[in-house]
Amino acid sequence: MPLFDRMVIAGVGLIGASLGLAARRRGLVREAVGFGRGEGNLRVALERGAIDRYSLDAAEAAGGADLVVLAVPVGSIAAVAQALLSSAAKDAVVVDVGSVKAGVVKQLEPLVRPPASFVGCHPIAGTEHSGAAHAFEDLFDGHRCILTPTAATDPGALARVRRLWEDVGMRVESMSAEEHDHLLAVVSHLPHVAAFALVSAVDGQRVGERDPLAYSGGGLRDSTRIASSHPEMWRDIFLDNRQEVLASIDVFAASVARIRALVEAGDGVGLERALAAIRAARGRLQEPKKP
Amino acid sequence: MPLFDRMVIAGVGLIGASLGLAARRRGLVREAVGFGRGEGNLRVALERGAIDRYSLDAAEAAGGADLVVLAVPVGSIAAVAQALLSSAAKDAVVVDVGSVKAGVVKQLEPLVRPPASFVGCHPIAGTEHSGAAHAFEDLFDGHRCILTPTAATDPGALARVRRLWEDVGMRVESMSAEEHDHLLAVVSHLPHVAAFALVSAVDGQRVGERDPLAYSGGGLRDSTRIASSHPEMWRDIFLDNRQEVLASIDVFAASVARIRALVEAGDGVGLERALAAIRAARGRLQEPKKP
Repeated sequence: MPLFDRMVIAGVGLIGASLGLAARRRGLVREAVGFGRGEGNLRVALERGAIDRYSLDAAEAAGGADLVVLAVPVGSIAAVAQALLSSAAKDAVVVDVGSVKAGVVKQLEPLVRPPASFVGCHPIAGTEHSGAAHAFEDLFDGHRCILTPTAATDPGALARVRRLWEDVGMRVESMSAEEHDHLLAVVSHLPHVAAFALVSAVDGQRVGERDPLAYSGGGLRDSTRIASSHPEMWRDIFLDNRQEVLASIDVFAASVARIRALVEAGDGVGLERALAAIRAARGRLQEPKKP
Repeated sequence: MPLFDRMVIAGVGLIGASLGLAARRRGLVREAVGFGRGEGNLRVALERGAIDRYSLDAAEAAGGADLVVLAVPVGSIAAVAQALLSSAAKDAVVVDVGSVKAGVVKQLEPLVRPPASFVGCHPIAGTEHSGAAHAFEDLFDGHRCILTPTAATDPGALARVRRLWEDVGMRVESMSAEEHDHLLAVVSHLPHVAAFALVSAVDGQRVGERDPLAYSGGGLRDSTRIASSHPEMWRDIFLDNRQEVLASIDVFAASVARIRALVEAGDGVGLERALAAIRAARGRLQEPKKP
């Protein structure tokens, strides 16, 4: 028996469409319905099997849905939630999939009134690509999903949402939205700042007549893969999580300055010690469950 | 007919042993001899087919060699060159494979006297691993090799060295040692500083009781792959190319500060514009010839 009867997915981008694919193929929902502004992407999602049907009309798309997935930019999330909730099942479970949680939880919790319930979710999965065209069923497999319930969260809804993410292959964990935002600033938002800044530092430099970017090796390529990420999405993430992002940038700038000082001082012993400690720390990095 | 008769490789690490493998398997040398301090790594190189034999004695290893490959740390390169040249062929061609060129060229050119000749080389290939155990024949395939000849470089030797690197699959180009060092500071040394600093910034932070490194996704993992590189080697590179590395760090720090300022100001328009320009610049990155 499916976990949910009818799932409406608002925003069939990489995450939304991949969830549709995974949930449909694993029989976790009886029906998946797409909702969005642009018909092109909805059509791609339909053709790829991420949804059973779609509508550009919120009331039609959400009619009778007992699971509402909000996979739209945070700037429009409250408006989309309201539009869908008017026709969704009274006891619908509502989730988001955003990379920053405190602000979204604060916005959505008052909107989603019992017997409906909201659970903030962050499936930590993705690639530098976006859109339904890049969605794939195994996107979530082996990755972490962080849930950010509050005292107001319905325990039954929380359990079903946990089950949904587990059933698409995720390792699910709960923490406060504030802890989530601090953690993600460090392990995700800061690396994006570093990658963006690195490309920016290389771009526009010229050595003789040469464009350094044409000389990059695997190191620069790997280090900056995430600098190809979606500008609008990352603008929103940086601004939504501004205080934590700024704090992380400051820690990072201090690390850069520390390495710079060792190089400037010609302190070979100190430099080697620092680099060896860093190499050891990197060994603690979470390795993917699958290649 | 082989390009060279006897190649002695001083330092059968990742680069030295991979060159041995590639040159032997493609018939570019009649014989490859290993030289080094540690017998363990030489034995691995022998077992893996990177060399035909080895010696811990410089005179024995280099006896009659018409190609001397210096693949040792730059700190010992002059002493190793002198030890090998005493028994190598009078007209031997000497190359190094170092990541910083101006200092090495300045050290070696006066040591390698005609009819012997020196050609500074930087095969831009490598992984974050080191040692003969990680060597592989295709390491160089499709990557760039930069030669840094001077007015004193013998044209015949330069042509043969170019041919050697081309025959192991590299795209060979010549420039001055100073241009090389500037270029590599930007496309290689700086990304390493950024990766080291990023791990350092994440390491030691705690979110609640959590170790952020345990929560890293693909972004942080890719961005910091090169932070697992060899501490001693990178200490030497940073210090050998100190002025260029410091200049690159300063450009990078300014880029970080620019992004920070946009975030702090809440300047969504400016931030999106900057991230979009960066994404476009990253599209100009040299893609590998092979996956």
